[in-house]
Amino acid sequence: MTLILSNDDVGKLLTMPDCMDCLEDAYRELAHGRGISRTRSDSVAPSGRDDEALYSLKSMDGVIPKLGVGAVRINSDIITWPKIGNSMRRVKSPAAPGGRYTGLVLLFSSETGEPLAIMPDGVMQRIRVGAANGLGVKYMARADAKTVGILGSGWQAGTQLAAACVARGITAIRCHSPTRENREKFCADMTAELGVECIPVDSPEAAIAGADIVMCATNTIDAVFFEQWLEPGAHLTSIKRPEIEEKAVARCDRVVVHTHDDKPMLVATRDLDVPEHGGERGWGLAAGIDFASLPTLPQLIAGEIVGRERPDEITCFLNNLGLGYQFAAAGAVVHRKAREQGLGHDLPTDWFTEDVHP
Amino acid sequence: MTLILSNDDVGKLLTMPDCMDCLEDAYRELAHGRGISRTRSDSVAPSGRDDEALYSLKSMDGVIPKLGVGAVRINSDIITWPKIGNSMRRVKSPAAPGGRYTGLVLLFSSETGEPLAIMPDGVMQRIRVGAANGLGVKYMARADAKTVGILGSGWQAGTQLAAACVARGITAIRCHSPTRENREKFCADMTAELGVECIPVDSPEAAIAGADIVMCATNTIDAVFFEQWLEPGAHLTSIKRPEIEEKAVARCDRVVVHTHDDKPMLVATRDLDVPEHGGERGWGLAAGIDFASLPTLPQLIAGEIVGRERPDEITCFLNNLGLGYQFAAAGAVVHRKAREQGLGHDLPTDWFTEDVHP
Repeated sequence: MTLILSNDDVGKLLTMPDCMDCLEDAYRELAHGRGISRTRSDSVAPSGRDDEALYSLKSMDGVIPKLGVGAVRINSDIITWPKIGNSMRRVKSPAAPGGRYTGLVLLFSSETGEPLAIMPDGVMQRIRVGAANGLGVKYMARADAKTVGILGSGWQAGTQLAAACVARGITAIRCHSPTRENREKFCADMTAELGVECIPVDSPEAAIAGADIVMCATNTIDAVFFEQWLEPGAHLTSIKRPEIEEKAVARCDRVVVHTHDDKPMLVATRDLDVPEHGGERGWGLAAGIDFASLPTLPQLIAGEIVGRERPDEITCFLNNLGLGYQFAAAGAVVHRKAREQGLGHDLPTDWFTEDVHP
Repeated sequence: MTLILSNDDVGKLLTMPDCMDCLEDAYRELAHGRGISRTRSDSVAPSGRDDEALYSLKSMDGVIPKLGVGAVRINSDIITWPKIGNSMRRVKSPAAPGGRYTGLVLLFSSETGEPLAIMPDGVMQRIRVGAANGLGVKYMARADAKTVGILGSGWQAGTQLAAACVARGITAIRCHSPTRENREKFCADMTAELGVECIPVDSPEAAIAGADIVMCATNTIDAVFFEQWLEPGAHLTSIKRPEIEEKAVARCDRVVVHTHDDKPMLVATRDLDVPEHGGERGWGLAAGIDFASLPTLPQLIAGEIVGRERPDEITCFLNNLGLGYQFAAAGAVVHRKAREQGLGHDLPTDWFTEDVHP
């Protein structure tokens, strides 16, 4: 049977420690050449809608023989890039029926080829971004790191904090985001969820001054952390390539990136202007950083490099691009636990396989 | 609702003239820069099985704004490369439960992002290969072409003949394949299906001598058609890059390829030997042909080049690599007709969409 799982199922099954554990193992496999990551591709075209939105069909694949799985993650998005203040954001419109988004993870067996499970990507996507940055904290932050300053209070910010709390004994968190109500609500929620006091503050400087760990977790495609804010001993972490100003990255003592893929493969209709793929924003930002020359998280986890040697070093983890490989790892855990706990809808595997040679 | 369709449904809904029409229109869009084709990627790893089979997770994407669709085609294959005589073949093992293959087409709306349909790829894959080569015949073969010689009697050969019969008034077909029983059964079936006499012959030369149209439709990854067999006025057509010897291709007066993608993007585990991606077979064959310098089928259909000027020219269409784009075009037709005719299983679209931001 092929299992159809919901975001609720994924949320129940995939804890942050689970996800950090499975990714840690999977990254080690990848570093040893025993896993496969196919770089994300973005196929972008006019959407045919009345608004200025574009259509983006995004896909990324991963295979982990050790776990017996392959995965394809697909996003079928209606996207706009509004300017909010001085920043440009990437905003997905919930344009599917019922005001919903379309993102899927298809999990396959690498021993039989069969489809094991199909599930939405949203909850898993958020947990795996947190888990990757949490592993950055585990291997790079000071062992006695206790305080976190975070920029952003949106969808990604919560799992960033959860992961930091798994990796280190965090005792205090300060958060800044531009809209007061958002950061206040976020801090109240996080304090309750994590059992660590999370304080909303009214400037980015107030959030990050003196923090042992500085987390950027925004949806901007412009920089939000700047060189003059660097402090000795800090660990910086970003969920997206443009968030940390290039000059700041250059000043860090050790920088690790998620992957050597420097950006998604863009395939677009002729003469289409895709804002985040333009020269000055998004994937164009931090273009001066030679990502291929920097070590990766898998290399760090496999022990090929050291994350930190001295307490006063400034370390930085740039989660520059997500991988389908992460969905294969997390998907394997979710599928195993769903089977154990009897969650999800079973559909006949025959619906998704065939007796004719493809 | 998201429609789950079977190969039977696709076979009922997608006629060869339908498929040739929709592809013709879609290729014109592509030539004008109004469609998107994301090159196939092959992620290949050890399968973890006891045999020597490898696991291959293959994906390819396409978007056609004019038809309001995007598609991802996925194959999750267990593959071996046995030697049969002097040829090496690529063989997929039906290793999924019930002895089945795993290949899927996911069709999305480019206006809302929603998943419109999920269907197996097998029947559609075969029809679209036939249709592409049929369009090659339509634009390149002599207008009075009446006879076909075909090499191969397997899964792909039938739709090659069906497409040739749509494109030209074919009156006689000769077929050779190495195993007598296979070619005899195939010819009997084709004679009944097409209403054109199809004669099995015991050598490749007997099949192709004097034929107006020579079709290669094998599953070998070595060459099967050679330079000395070229005859003036013939149109040659191949479903796969290696089938026509490089020296034969070089002697043709006009050569059109399916796409400028010269081969799939291979991503493999370290030190893995993937036979068809090696130096001497499969994608390595015909490496001396500069595919990027040859015109494509979309350019031919859009009128950027001429397929044939004189009756004695030798023309050649190389279907060098399949495109996810074809599945978007054919998928749009199948989805529309399935809705009209009430075929397929409806599943709640909510199962494949989400209310959380992915």
